[in-house]
Amino acid sequence: MTGLLPEGFHDTLPPRADAAAALEATVLRVSAGYGYERVDPPLAEFARSLGERLKAGGLTDAVRFVDPVSQETLAIRPDLTAQVARIAATRMGHHPRPVRLSYAGPVLKLRGDQLAPARERRQIGCELIGLDSVAAATEILGVAAEALGAAGMTGVSIDVTLPDLVDVLAAGPLPVPPEQTAALKDRLDAKDAGAVAALAPAYLPLVEAAGPFEAALARLRAIDSTGALSSRLDGIASIAATLGDTVTLTLDPTERHGFEFQSWFGFSLFVAGASREVGRGGTYALIGADGREEVATGFSLYADVLAEQLPAPERRRLFLPHGTPTDVGRELRAEGWVTVAGLEPGDSPEAQLCTHVWREGDVAPA
Amino acid sequence: MTGLLPEGFHDTLPPRADAAAALEATVLRVSAGYGYERVDPPLAEFARSLGERLKAGGLTDAVRFVDPVSQETLAIRPDLTAQVARIAATRMGHHPRPVRLSYAGPVLKLRGDQLAPARERRQIGCELIGLDSVAAATEILGVAAEALGAAGMTGVSIDVTLPDLVDVLAAGPLPVPPEQTAALKDRLDAKDAGAVAALAPAYLPLVEAAGPFEAALARLRAIDSTGALSSRLDGIASIAATLGDTVTLTLDPTERHGFEFQSWFGFSLFVAGASREVGRGGTYALIGADGREEVATGFSLYADVLAEQLPAPERRRLFLPHGTPTDVGRELRAEGWVTVAGLEPGDSPEAQLCTHVWREGDVAPA
Repeated sequence: MTGLLPEGFHDTLPPRADAAAALEATVLRVSAGYGYERVDPPLAEFARSLGERLKAGGLTDAVRFVDPVSQETLAIRPDLTAQVARIAATRMGHHPRPVRLSYAGPVLKLRGDQLAPARERRQIGCELIGLDSVAAATEILGVAAEALGAAGMTGVSIDVTLPDLVDVLAAGPLPVPPEQTAALKDRLDAKDAGAVAALAPAYLPLVEAAGPFEAALARLRAIDSTGALSSRLDGIASIAATLGDTVTLTLDPTERHGFEFQSWFGFSLFVAGASREVGRGGTYALIGADGREEVATGFSLYADVLAEQLPAPERRRLFLPHGTPTDVGRELRAEGWVTVAGLEPGDSPEAQLCTHVWREGDVAPA
Repeated sequence: MTGLLPEGFHDTLPPRADAAAALEATVLRVSAGYGYERVDPPLAEFARSLGERLKAGGLTDAVRFVDPVSQETLAIRPDLTAQVARIAATRMGHHPRPVRLSYAGPVLKLRGDQLAPARERRQIGCELIGLDSVAAATEILGVAAEALGAAGMTGVSIDVTLPDLVDVLAAGPLPVPPEQTAALKDRLDAKDAGAVAALAPAYLPLVEAAGPFEAALARLRAIDSTGALSSRLDGIASIAATLGDTVTLTLDPTERHGFEFQSWFGFSLFVAGASREVGRGGTYALIGADGREEVATGFSLYADVLAEQLPAPERRRLFLPHGTPTDVGRELRAEGWVTVAGLEPGDSPEAQLCTHVWREGDVAPA
């Protein structure tokens, strides 16, 4: 079937598509239990308005087209978070904060990349708008972890990062010439100890302060002689204490890739079996309609990567031979059966992938 | 907020978006009970491949863009049925017939029209591939009617049409010169009695054979002196008998608009309160990978039009004041409550749109 679809696009077939839809419904059900209410923004928007709320360069990846109605360029969303931020800042701008919003839907990119060749993805998430406190981060991580568990994921692991760590240290206890900050961040991100030692040796311990949460936190506390990081470190310690043993926590304080727009707290989500992250999130600032910044905390899950982790779903289908009265089917469906009616005399339970068959007034194995 | 979004696109906000998602889940749950399994095709495909399976002109309405990977033109789907037909004919071509498939997702059009200005819609549907018999049409209409009822719609009404009626009559008992057939169909569609009388007076009774099902059927039987229509008329009579009193049936035998690709049977769905149709379907032929035609029967629902009919959803949210222990929230959610945690001392049930509040160890009205 190669060549049927463009590279980076795929069909999801039975019974996987039902399983993927159920996974998504589970995540949204768990989120709804914490008061997150769904918003559903459109697939396409004015490119300029979408671009303003996306992280730098985000819109270069978007599919664009000229709108024959407005003569303006529209873009298919490459990400849902920016749309949710727009809704929170405009249509829901009058709503008292915090506002809890959830969303689920497809996003489209013009090009895939090597790590993630898919050009269409399903994104599910929650945004807590108006707060970026420790309490906010604790709630968001708790919802994400519970949703992953409810969706059948095991071995949930959260890699915590502190996106503005170098900025805080450079502005305080460990000064770095402004023109070297970007290079330092880049080399820390690459865990390039040699280059870090050459650029700013005081930052060298950060290269090693990555790994299991408690040990890494202790190493960071040891570096933080002036206490410039103490509120951040106390914050992530409190988050870790609340999450407890339900998840595995690691700390990678200088991981920056993809966290360029996060403020003090960021995280990546992993589950057993998945070779890459299944979601991420953190604290960030969004731009309101009046240009004021507003803080927020949220997470996004990549539904496709999660759905790949599900075991092959089992079918349980009851074949109703040709001529079975319709009220028999109605009663069996009311009992929870999936019934598949034989609409012609020649149809069979085998052809209809049925596990059971209605025979002599009873359910029998097919 | 005018100008935030391009014409024909809209945001769905809380609590409507959750209600719309629940409606969609209900339709798919009812369909699943009859053995319809979900497929999830991608948003974009090669334009040429999508165009081959769409009805004439369908792809002129599609958003297109050049794929930087393949250098070919891709199109965002303006309709999901053509994709489901592709899947049935190719990836699921080896599967014994009939195959029951369901789907739900957004579709995009480059332009809206006066009757339906929306350019993005959500389409939900079921396709029974491999059969276009009376039994197939009966099942499809039954699933559609049950799904609409389960989704809370009342006053479900089905307008039945016979898309190939004029062709059958013209080829048999009521000959029409081939060059006049198109004009005759057009004038019948417009219920233009004067023009029909001038073109082919024998067809005049068809103009009046529209209305409540039983009376209209009797008028058609009276026209059908040679019995050329008898299998069709017996078929729709049988479908009507099975559906019984659960729905209101009307018959508009020469309605053609939008049924250009249906074969012997077509229908439009209406519900109380909706000013336009909420779905449609019928029997049709699809083109397999090897070029052979295959018959099928299906329906599509327009989820947005349906969701507009839902009453404003009521919220039931329980506020947990700042400092409420986390296990209290867990227990209340397990009981089915939506809990909204006060993450700061100043937060209030009013600000969080809560109907209830946790007070002195108990649930109280807010």
